[in-house]
Amino acid sequence: MPQTFIPIQETLLPKGVKDFLPLKAVKIDYLNRALAEVFQRWGFRPVVPPSLENLDVLENGLGAGLRERTFRFDDRQSGKLVAFPPDITPQIARIFATRMQDMPLPVRLCYSGRVLRHAEQQAGKDREIFQAGVELIGLESAEADAEMIAMAIESLQAIGARDFTIDIGQVEFYHGIMAELDLPPAALQRLREAIVRKDNSELKNLLEALPIADRNKEELQILPRLFGGREILDKAAGAVRNDRSRAALDNLAQVLDVLDIHDVANHLTLDLAEIRSLDYHTGITFQGFLPGLGRAVCSGGRYDNLTARYGRKAPATGFTFNLLNLLFALDRELEQQVESRVDVLLFQAGVDEKPAQRIARALRNRGYSAARDMLPRDLEASLAYAAKMNFTYLMILSEDTPFRLIRVADRQERTLTLADIHADAFILNPAGDE
Amino acid sequence: MPQTFIPIQETLLPKGVKDFLPLKAVKIDYLNRALAEVFQRWGFRPVVPPSLENLDVLENGLGAGLRERTFRFDDRQSGKLVAFPPDITPQIARIFATRMQDMPLPVRLCYSGRVLRHAEQQAGKDREIFQAGVELIGLESAEADAEMIAMAIESLQAIGARDFTIDIGQVEFYHGIMAELDLPPAALQRLREAIVRKDNSELKNLLEALPIADRNKEELQILPRLFGGREILDKAAGAVRNDRSRAALDNLAQVLDVLDIHDVANHLTLDLAEIRSLDYHTGITFQGFLPGLGRAVCSGGRYDNLTARYGRKAPATGFTFNLLNLLFALDRELEQQVESRVDVLLFQAGVDEKPAQRIARALRNRGYSAARDMLPRDLEASLAYAAKMNFTYLMILSEDTPFRLIRVADRQERTLTLADIHADAFILNPAGDE
Repeated sequence: MPQTFIPIQETLLPKGVKDFLPLKAVKIDYLNRALAEVFQRWGFRPVVPPSLENLDVLENGLGAGLRERTFRFDDRQSGKLVAFPPDITPQIARIFATRMQDMPLPVRLCYSGRVLRHAEQQAGKDREIFQAGVELIGLESAEADAEMIAMAIESLQAIGARDFTIDIGQVEFYHGIMAELDLPPAALQRLREAIVRKDNSELKNLLEALPIADRNKEELQILPRLFGGREILDKAAGAVRNDRSRAALDNLAQVLDVLDIHDVANHLTLDLAEIRSLDYHTGITFQGFLPGLGRAVCSGGRYDNLTARYGRKAPATGFTFNLLNLLFALDRELEQQVESRVDVLLFQAGVDEKPAQRIARALRNRGYSAARDMLPRDLEASLAYAAKMNFTYLMILSEDTPFRLIRVADRQERTLTLADIHADAFILNPAGDE
Repeated sequence: MPQTFIPIQETLLPKGVKDFLPLKAVKIDYLNRALAEVFQRWGFRPVVPPSLENLDVLENGLGAGLRERTFRFDDRQSGKLVAFPPDITPQIARIFATRMQDMPLPVRLCYSGRVLRHAEQQAGKDREIFQAGVELIGLESAEADAEMIAMAIESLQAIGARDFTIDIGQVEFYHGIMAELDLPPAALQRLREAIVRKDNSELKNLLEALPIADRNKEELQILPRLFGGREILDKAAGAVRNDRSRAALDNLAQVLDVLDIHDVANHLTLDLAEIRSLDYHTGITFQGFLPGLGRAVCSGGRYDNLTARYGRKAPATGFTFNLLNLLFALDRELEQQVESRVDVLLFQAGVDEKPAQRIARALRNRGYSAARDMLPRDLEASLAYAAKMNFTYLMILSEDTPFRLIRVADRQERTLTLADIHADAFILNPAGDE
């Protein structure tokens, strides 16, 4: 064994990864459970892909952006290059294509897991990302895309979010415009960047210098302004003439029609210049935003070409939540969701711990959380411990009933008998309840 | 993008890792939820350590065995050696020592996560291991060790295990005997191996050749036979004279006394030659076994020196479940636990999907799982899909109620109205229920 390690807090962990202590960890657990519950209600079944993939296989499903950010290394046992997945969707696509050939379509799959991505260090960005999401494979209809958006909204509502926005795009609208241009890749890339940044003056400067038709210039110039409610669909239809962009608008309208029955229009924003999304998207895309956080808490969209890269072509759509972004944006709401637990600390001055163990057992059998204070200390010290550790009650056991029950938050107390415990009647009024 | 990948099933994944498809994945989810529920009832709070650690920090808490098996590589962003943890307990020890200094003792922490370990490839062993466990830090009493064993048993019962055995050891008994011997490390190692294998004739041969007192030889020779019920404590006490071994026996007796109130004696076996455990154990150790599986499904014990390696000395005890071993040994029992779900597939021949979406929504709001069959196909094809995908019911929607409800397993059917759905009264008799 090496000599004792003297910790210097800041250098303990690699940059971009974190420890989550109980106050945060219970919220992560809650998010995972609540989201899994919604996914299950919509008929999605879990899959668990491994933490390790062969790099050559995994890379089939990664765009250039994620490829660059993939953690990779030599597997000393096989000599092959292996990788930690930077995204779970390509893993699901691989599983669908290679492990589920005998499954009829559509297939509804969900997952929860952690991925690693290299990230800008100076920005203090997370390199470990907690994801929970779904993939709906085998359907090309607008109804399937609408299902993804409705589920994302129902998920957000299930975890206590109230004010949120879903920004919906359709990458085919943009591709339809760009396909008509006969420009070198560098010029297309500069145009794309100006559109992504919604930088209208830069876009104007670029367009002035480019040898393209006025009609195309007009289409490109209006693009960053095609942002808002359903009314922009008409505006967009009036602005473009190519079939591909028009089909994209029809598709968007169909998705909005299906979403009507969910009564969610007030949460939706359309943004036809939204083209930042992952390389594999081929139709509808969407991102969810919460107040006070510039980063999306969820993102998704259609990806009809991904599973083919693993040998089985199928249309597909899906979305994923970023749990750490949710945790950050919903910290207060989640506080309320996880606070409902009742924890009892048992205090007993005597040396025979068996009566306390029996009471603890009875409490647990009734669904309460119970622990005995096993350290020899006085009542005041035990109460201080209970307060620091967020126990709801301290129960003082003695040779005979009735026992004393103290609510830790305000030190209100009552007495109670064994019969009270077995009758679930031992609670005062839970702290915080009026 | 590279050209389309042609999958060759066997070479897709690195050796020792697996995909878990829905039938297995729902069981993994169930295990995680059921174990977390038990841990929470005993007052344990979750922590989530990262998937990436600095190797030099992590190694402080790893014995030679796990160090050798650790996945490590250069972090291209920091240039430092980083590692994927091969065990979560050292991470919890680090978190306790460096992140929770202001927490009073004891601290009860639980976790669920995945670790990677190099493993013998030819044996087909898992390299990715799914763990769920607890650590109780700050108590040196036998009651704390008993809590770990009682919790392991309650956890096994909670997930449907009936026939299981907990093998309990106490490494100090062995250390007390060995400390009296003045032998070179190689000789000690050979003795240890013979004891671990319970190879009495090899042990006898080794002892005959060694220059140690007859009394010590007798102690070593009896060690592999100190295996059985509580009666072996007396046998062991009669066989050893050193204080360290005798203190270990007293400690074992105290742990068994506390366990008495849990009425679990029929599950317990004592084994004083059980010294295989991880290098960091310093007292009681235990392993849980299920019929038909030679590998332990859970293992744990006392480790009083581990947190000090991260700068804060504290006694500690804990245990962890190996979820994949549980999955293998309890496959049938888990089948029953996860089968209670009711899934409804909605079939509707018409083109307007809105009525179906509304019914699906009503079903979900009542806690059922519901999906619409969005593909244009006839009723027979939809029923075949429902059967293959394990839906419980197919509900046939039409312009007017009543609707037809078909139980997929046996095609029994009834009619039902909207009011039935809202009254939770639409279930036939769930398939499999008598």
